[in-house]
Amino acid sequence: MKKILDFLPERPVKPRNTGITMVMDKGLSLREAEDFISIGSEYTDFVKLGFGTALITPGLPEKIRLYKKAGVMPYFGGTLFEAFLVRDMFRDFLKFIDDNEIEYVEVSDGSYDIDHARKLEYISELAKRGSVISEVGSKKKEIIYTPEEWVSMMKAELEAGSVKVIAEARESGTTGIYNADGSANMTIINAISDNVKLDNVIWEAPLKSQQVWFIKNFGPNVNLGNIPPTEIIPLESLRLGLRGDTFFDFLPENLRNK
Amino acid sequence: MKKILDFLPERPVKPRNTGITMVMDKGLSLREAEDFISIGSEYTDFVKLGFGTALITPGLPEKIRLYKKAGVMPYFGGTLFEAFLVRDMFRDFLKFIDDNEIEYVEVSDGSYDIDHARKLEYISELAKRGSVISEVGSKKKEIIYTPEEWVSMMKAELEAGSVKVIAEARESGTTGIYNADGSANMTIINAISDNVKLDNVIWEAPLKSQQVWFIKNFGPNVNLGNIPPTEIIPLESLRLGLRGDTFFDFLPENLRNK
Amino acid sequence: MKKILDFLPERPVKPRNTGITMVMDKGLSLREAEDFISIGSEYTDFVKLGFGTALITPGLPEKIRLYKKAGVMPYFGGTLFEAFLVRDMFRDFLKFIDDNEIEYVEVSDGSYDIDHARKLEYISELAKRGSVISEVGSKKKEIIYTPEEWVSMMKAELEAGSVKVIAEARESGTTGIYNADGSANMTIINAISDNVKLDNVIWEAPLKSQQVWFIKNFGPNVNLGNIPPTEIIPLESLRLGLRGDTFFDFLPENLRNK
Repeated sequence: MKKILDFLPERPVKPRNTGITMVMDKGLSLREAEDFISIGSEYTDFVKLGFGTALITPGLPEKIRLYKKAGVMPYFGGTLFEAFLVRDMFRDFLKFIDDNEIEYVEVSDGSYDIDHARKLEYISELAKRGSVISEVGSKKKEIIYTPEEWVSMMKAELEAGSVKVIAEARESGTTGIYNADGSANMTIINAISDNVKLDNVIWEAPLKSQQVWFIKNFGPNVNLGNIPPTEIIPLESLRLGLRGDTFFDFLPENLRNK
Repeated sequence: MKKILDFLPERPVKPRNTGITMVMDKGLSLREAEDFISIGSEYTDFVKLGFGTALITPGLPEKIRLYKKAGVMPYFGGTLFEAFLVRDMFRDFLKFIDDNEIEYVEVSDGSYDIDHARKLEYISELAKRGSVISEVGSKKKEIIYTPEEWVSMMKAELEAGSVKVIAEARESGTTGIYNADGSANMTIINAISDNVKLDNVIWEAPLKSQQVWFIKNFGPNVNLGNIPPTEIIPLESLRLGLRGDTFFDFLPENLRNK
Repeated sequence: MKKILDFLPERPVKPRNTGITMVMDKGLSLREAEDFISIGSEYTDFVKLGFGTALITPGLPEKIRLYKKAGVMPYFGGTLFEAFLVRDMFRDFLKFIDDNEIEYVEVSDGSYDIDHARKLEYISELAKRGSVISEVGSKKKEIIYTPEEWVSMMKAELEAGSVKVIAEARESGTTGIYNADGSANMTIINAISDNVKLDNVIWEAPLKSQQVWFIKNFGPNVNLGNIPPTEIIPLESLRLGLRGDTFFDFLPENLRNK
């Protein structure tokens, strides 16, 4: 199928810095993780073991080994970091990630509000030990950041050592960069995209309508996160214009007006 | 991870009488049932083979053996009981559960309205042969019980021999103890919780928002049912405060106001 | 369970011309396809490899072999046909389906508008090489066909050689024969059912409420499509009256008023 694939948008090969997909595993069995890998490893860069599930998932070390062997980088959801932090157990958190041979760490403050200067210190410290992905945005509906705050926090976190910043949306896709009905909050998104290098941002986009919106607006190689495992092939279809929603978006100009 | 687990809410170990989770299997393959067991058996007390699926599920005897061996008690959805009953085949129903070596039986009247006195007789008769779980609440939107009726039916059924009573919500979570939009009907729920021993009630809570509501209001060890298999780890995370929604609910007092 | 099954609606055995179920596989792994087959092959006639997923699914030849061996006929979603067509690669499409030993072909114009006369020519040509299933209805919300157009297109396509026509609804179930809220568009559906032989129509019905509507209105053996793999057993339960929604619909008259 060389020929038709030549007519599709180009996707960088792994390891890549753009066109990244982060999938959320919120409790797959080992065999289900293998199933996912067999179908999705080429299209997936990161797997987030959602929120604090790592603490209660049977077979965690085997799962981490499976993902790493498949070239899909596993890391723990930021809520785990926060669960240790709120109990004054940061040193235990470090031990936990070391024991599990985890190279990427998510630093977030979605549930537990900490001073942003302190968050930056954690990012700096963790960046010396491995790679940090930090998340901006609260899980709480009553905490609303201005577009300027989104931008300045993201910039500061990248400067402190994060390799990527994630724009929060939760598993439900109804907070942070989205309105309560799941539609895109364009004021926030535009402010971010105007001021932060797009390669450095991963947009959480659990709902198909959100994936479509980002691919239409930022192209096939926009970085997307919180993708359910079962949606990895459908998402790749959207990126490549192989689904109705983006069918015409990435066609060569001369075919587009047919 | 002894240490951080010490800081999480305590969960009774199986077999337990409180903190129960009932999962609905509406057509898993044998291998998928194995996958579920590998990840969820510690957290799951009962698996309901939903509505009448038992009659048309290939490999039913093997599936029942799998669940029993894993210490997860399987039983047939109440609609199966009703499907036999409406055809005057109660004796055939008894044979069917005996042939399948099923120890728990669900008695319900969600689709087929029977006199409550007659329902109590079935509960008594079946309680002599095994353990009965009975369900209160109609699947029909036009049948609405008063809070007093919910309470009196539950009490009568427990007295007749049910080991647990289930509060109906369907797979969709939009009837019975919930309003049409899936939100909790607090008048009914409060009446039940004020008058029926909570250990004896299993609340159907298929939607995450419903699980959160019950855990926040009745604590980590509330009995919940109709949980989709893929939600067993996320639900346990909610019970333990390892997810944003319940992050602060079960923290020691001195950490809660941080 | 011969006895109770005798009391349930009769379902034709495969290969059958009515009571057909078409399932959408949008990216199962090989092992997940095996799992699906183990539970659903008896109840499933066709598996559509959704939209353009065939181009990017690892292990496609093995998957096709698996389904064919199980007597579940696989075919590619119509968007794949359209993706080749818009790039003037119809001959390459023929080669692709031949290379993959696919016997059924879906011809659609849901994303790429082509003249209906030209669509009929494609149907005729493809009908000489294998079996054609054609789809009527646009994926675009701005393209709305009158009931008369639905009927005349379906009739013309059957005449041109389609063995079945599919009434479009998308994976989301919110366009074509449904209103934007997913409810049935009865004007269109009635026009079709009054004028086109029902055995020849497959109704896309991804949502449970839609499956219930069609089964209640057209009986247990209505042809339904775009069923998620995990819903195959629940759907068969609906067809057989083994679920609350259709519990009374197919009971013998004397039992119905109980």
